[in-house]
Amino acid sequence: MDKKNTLKIIKIGGNVIDDPKALAAFLRVFSSLEGPKVLVHGGGKSATALAQKTGLEVKMVEGRRITDAATLELITMVYAGKINKTIIAQLQALQCNALGFTGADANTIRSEKRPVSTLDYGFVGDVKNVETSTLEVLLEHGISPVFCAITHDTNGQLLNTNADTIASELAIAFAAQFDVELYYCFEKKGVLKDVNDDDSVIQNITKSSYKKLLEAQLIFSGMLPKLNNCFHALDHQVSKVCIGKPEMLLDSKAIFTTLTMQ
Amino acid sequence: MDKKNTLKIIKIGGNVIDDPKALAAFLRVFSSLEGPKVLVHGGGKSATALAQKTGLEVKMVEGRRITDAATLELITMVYAGKINKTIIAQLQALQCNALGFTGADANTIRSEKRPVSTLDYGFVGDVKNVETSTLEVLLEHGISPVFCAITHDTNGQLLNTNADTIASELAIAFAAQFDVELYYCFEKKGVLKDVNDDDSVIQNITKSSYKKLLEAQLIFSGMLPKLNNCFHALDHQVSKVCIGKPEMLLDSKAIFTTLTMQ
Repeated sequence: MDKKNTLKIIKIGGNVIDDPKALAAFLRVFSSLEGPKVLVHGGGKSATALAQKTGLEVKMVEGRRITDAATLELITMVYAGKINKTIIAQLQALQCNALGFTGADANTIRSEKRPVSTLDYGFVGDVKNVETSTLEVLLEHGISPVFCAITHDTNGQLLNTNADTIASELAIAFAAQFDVELYYCFEKKGVLKDVNDDDSVIQNITKSSYKKLLEAQLIFSGMLPKLNNCFHALDHQVSKVCIGKPEMLLDSKAIFTTLTMQ
Repeated sequence: MDKKNTLKIIKIGGNVIDDPKALAAFLRVFSSLEGPKVLVHGGGKSATALAQKTGLEVKMVEGRRITDAATLELITMVYAGKINKTIIAQLQALQCNALGFTGADANTIRSEKRPVSTLDYGFVGDVKNVETSTLEVLLEHGISPVFCAITHDTNGQLLNTNADTIASELAIAFAAQFDVELYYCFEKKGVLKDVNDDDSVIQNITKSSYKKLLEAQLIFSGMLPKLNNCFHALDHQVSKVCIGKPEMLLDSKAIFTTLTMQ
């Protein structure tokens, strides 16, 4: 079998998006990466700020934000409008040809509204299908897709969707065609042994060492959803997953966490 | 020379966008059109409504809206976020594969900030260059690009741009590859002889008959910018330009205005 080309999928979160300098620095790194690449961005604080300005109440139940119709409209404006287009314009200025996406665009990510059990999350979607054919054509033409965290149900409904999940589902869908590397950039250097010690980075985690870390309760509970996304991707032919600061993408001496199957 | 394929470029304005039923009806028509097609949409009233909600002052000078930084951010949210993604999701539900664009996306439309003379319009862009290569690839794959009225200067600045102009500049750029038909949908049946009589539609206007209408002062001044856009397109190899209600796209008995060179 021919060796597949490497595709990098990189997810950035609110901490990068909320800080214009950090975002500009990250986009310089992203634009300098060779080969095909996809960017996925989260929301940041400007959705909350706009909600406050417009008098929209943020509904939290059991620590989860509830996406009612007004909230969905607001995050569509902030994520797909303000943040996504600011990123696209800045990447173009860096000679990185980019094209913004929600999952509705080119029908790339179909999701289903999360079923109501004890809690109705509102217009929140769980990813059901990723269609990469249009994205592959664009990558072949040197264009980097940039996804915000909104999908659709194919019946006309946009749905708020977790950005970490979008990144891992894209990675899995592309794994048939590419050797996929998935990078989660966040505010820490990686997965920490001691949540209060930024230098306690666990540099390598395999599926078996993860089990042991879990049993020894050495993983901070806030990291569990992200790590579950990572191993879900590794379970589905994604080559490797890295977690750390954006610097990990370029600096060969950077310390970060790499997750692999073995 | 081989006969070129026909490409339809259709522009809808605020009156369609502001009325959910009218928008849904228009999108059913658009999705049913055969062959390659591009949609361009204007803004509508929701930008003004959001401005009022957030306490943003609408700055008008000599009847023109001034786009300061806060206004640009707001229209980017409304045009590229709310309106564009609502349209994309609805088109997908109609099995019309669509992909949303600003001019920054895939570097499709480069503009320049309008020079300051007596009046500083702020972040308003005049179109300088349209790059259709990515759009042609997407059209070949059965995907309809959907443009909102935002462009960029390739240096990282998004710019508010007239939607009628975006439609005509896209039409001109595509004319090298396609036999382009440009449709301006608005609230009237077409160009009217008597602005108070909706049935006084001038069904055909050529360049020479337009001159005569202008000399006789029979064109309502509000129509002049639109008609100048139309003849600019016809002057640059666009085959025909039509102005009227969305019904003109499907109903063979519809009455509307067709502009041609001769």
